[in-house]
Amino acid sequence: MTDYDRFLSHTGRELHESAIRRMGTVVARAGDLVSFAPGYPDATMFPWAELHEISAQLLTGSDGSTLQYGPTRGYQPLLEAITGLLAERDIRVGIEQLIITSGSQQGIDLAGRVLVSPGEVVLVELPSFTGAIAAFKNVQADVVGVRQELDGIDVDDLDRVWERERKAGKTVKLLYLVPNFQNPTGVLTSLEKRRKVVAWADRRDVLIVEDDPYGSLYFEDVATPAETRPMRADDPSGRVIYLSTFSKTLAPGLRVGWMVAPPSLIERFDTAKQGADLTSGMLDQRLVYEAVRRGVVHRLAPRLRARYQEKRTVMETAIREALGDRLTWPDPKGGFFLWATLPGGYSDVDLLDQCLAHGLIFVIGSAFFVDGSGHDKIRLSFSAPDTKRIREGVRRLAAAMNSGSR
Amino acid sequence: MTDYDRFLSHTGRELHESAIRRMGTVVARAGDLVSFAPGYPDATMFPWAELHEISAQLLTGSDGSTLQYGPTRGYQPLLEAITGLLAERDIRVGIEQLIITSGSQQGIDLAGRVLVSPGEVVLVELPSFTGAIAAFKNVQADVVGVRQELDGIDVDDLDRVWERERKAGKTVKLLYLVPNFQNPTGVLTSLEKRRKVVAWADRRDVLIVEDDPYGSLYFEDVATPAETRPMRADDPSGRVIYLSTFSKTLAPGLRVGWMVAPPSLIERFDTAKQGADLTSGMLDQRLVYEAVRRGVVHRLAPRLRARYQEKRTVMETAIREALGDRLTWPDPKGGFFLWATLPGGYSDVDLLDQCLAHGLIFVIGSAFFVDGSGHDKIRLSFSAPDTKRIREGVRRLAAAMNSGSR
Repeated sequence: MTDYDRFLSHTGRELHESAIRRMGTVVARAGDLVSFAPGYPDATMFPWAELHEISAQLLTGSDGSTLQYGPTRGYQPLLEAITGLLAERDIRVGIEQLIITSGSQQGIDLAGRVLVSPGEVVLVELPSFTGAIAAFKNVQADVVGVRQELDGIDVDDLDRVWERERKAGKTVKLLYLVPNFQNPTGVLTSLEKRRKVVAWADRRDVLIVEDDPYGSLYFEDVATPAETRPMRADDPSGRVIYLSTFSKTLAPGLRVGWMVAPPSLIERFDTAKQGADLTSGMLDQRLVYEAVRRGVVHRLAPRLRARYQEKRTVMETAIREALGDRLTWPDPKGGFFLWATLPGGYSDVDLLDQCLAHGLIFVIGSAFFVDGSGHDKIRLSFSAPDTKRIREGVRRLAAAMNSGSR
Repeated sequence: MTDYDRFLSHTGRELHESAIRRMGTVVARAGDLVSFAPGYPDATMFPWAELHEISAQLLTGSDGSTLQYGPTRGYQPLLEAITGLLAERDIRVGIEQLIITSGSQQGIDLAGRVLVSPGEVVLVELPSFTGAIAAFKNVQADVVGVRQELDGIDVDDLDRVWERERKAGKTVKLLYLVPNFQNPTGVLTSLEKRRKVVAWADRRDVLIVEDDPYGSLYFEDVATPAETRPMRADDPSGRVIYLSTFSKTLAPGLRVGWMVAPPSLIERFDTAKQGADLTSGMLDQRLVYEAVRRGVVHRLAPRLRARYQEKRTVMETAIREALGDRLTWPDPKGGFFLWATLPGGYSDVDLLDQCLAHGLIFVIGSAFFVDGSGHDKIRLSFSAPDTKRIREGVRRLAAAMNSGSR
């Protein structure tokens, strides 16, 4: 038999698996597990009736293009509809600054491929989204961490790290951020810090990838839409590449995200996407377009905010009841996650082992740190399970933590 | 304003656009154009009624996973159904040797990323599919051409090219082939040659990427299913990575293809796909699964064969009537294309200009050649237009050729 390892490319040998995806595989295989692991949206909130009606109208065959290959850039009415959604976020662009991607993940991947050469530096927060870390490592970027504070990235540390890397002869190409309800911490970057970061990027000649899947999922009891204003809305020097998606506001099984970038870069992303997958699914794009046009996405947003806020409260209350102050976390102001600090002596990896024995999974904190730290953290996702399962999961978490061995 | 070219990676600077995709953009923008350019399937043949019914049943909301994130490897019932389709092609594998891709194009891209380092050689036929050439060039492969004969790749030239590249210090990693009704030539590789090529790959320690989108679309008046037997069916030493898709047998707007490879490589492709797009569309996969399970795909195949065979005859007859023997082509035994040789003195680029003025587009032959040749060829796709438009397109082609200037 052939030894296939001999055939691997540099990339193939060094591929990085997402810890979140690995957890998803565990869930798919196991029986009665409570999963606080993947950040899946609540499937009961998908607009089933509306999508049922839309698909029935799309699949009559009266427009053959619904199931045909489409333009790599995306279905034009959807591109135009997205410019409208962006304008509501004060991002005013034409469709020449837009491309549809097969989920936001493809946007990250295209940014990595088109912008980052092997050995160049991509800066991420400590912690950061594992899917982004994996995508940048897969283009052999040197992914370097910057400290995070409760109101977002530590701008002093950002500049320190930049200087250190420059002195080491490195090119710092990109800064990757999730300013709204970051994955994994739930941190909301302050408006003041957003301005500072954009000014910093201009001064240091770095591009920013602003990934915004959760922006409209703020919790109305602690946050306002004004606080989620994208960095791309105040970007006079054109430093920010903006990514978003319908995965959290509609449904992730329809793989439809988008990128906003200067036209010259959009053309490169388009060419790179031609080679990557030719086109995103046309039926998916048509379904999403109709859901936007008919107001489904708009009507759904406040219901999603209320639902996830309720689940957050259920999880927080259950943990406090079961564990007192043994777990602590920054209050999430939106999004899908509690980012909990473990009591002294606990490690994320050992606790996961014990929780698995009790029928619970989560994502270990260290998976989100590119510097090997984070073993005192765990990410608990409250978005997918119903409130009963959230309480049951917390019961199992407490049982595991109280089971003696650490 | 920022000069974004400064930020491009090596890949970003050297991205290769597919000539076919570019033509698609022209079509989308123009008015009364007849298009013989992109190899789009006939949209009137998509099983609209069946997909309408299936989607109505899937979107009731009774199974939340229909619109949820899914496993990167693919929807498990679909993976199992594909092992059944593969067994009909005498490829006997378990699901550990399978991964769903977002169209076959993603399979080519993943093979390039996981297997080919910058500067390594990928061998392709002269001519070859532009989407594959683009994907391999995007990982900075050295894409090198090998002569083609009427029954497939020239095996003597293949070994000559291999020796030449090896003497030049190059690593020859992959051979990319479309043995069934090749894009662009329509050539059907003979069974004898398939065996020779697999034996050659084993002797020279090269992997083969066998891309098979058109295998079931043979023309029953000139070909038999036995002649389309995949190389992967007779691959004792495990040299062949096999790609296929539902784009031509069901609908390309559902982005569902697949790869067959040894389990250790499938794991790498899975990890690479995590970073590329997390998962292929779940609704698309469910629709395709149901279409396979309910026999839609099987019932459709003979109707597709008859339809494309009829269109081939209409195009061939129309060209002979309008142009006599001024255009010649190898008889296609299946697939979507006529690969025509122009009379002496004509060039593909100039003729395209003249045809554009007459309201017709096709793909220039030279786009398929990595060695800069092929200017005496054009690819005429008969798959998408109806028979009346095929005749009208040929009328315009003849008018352009007769318009004096060359």
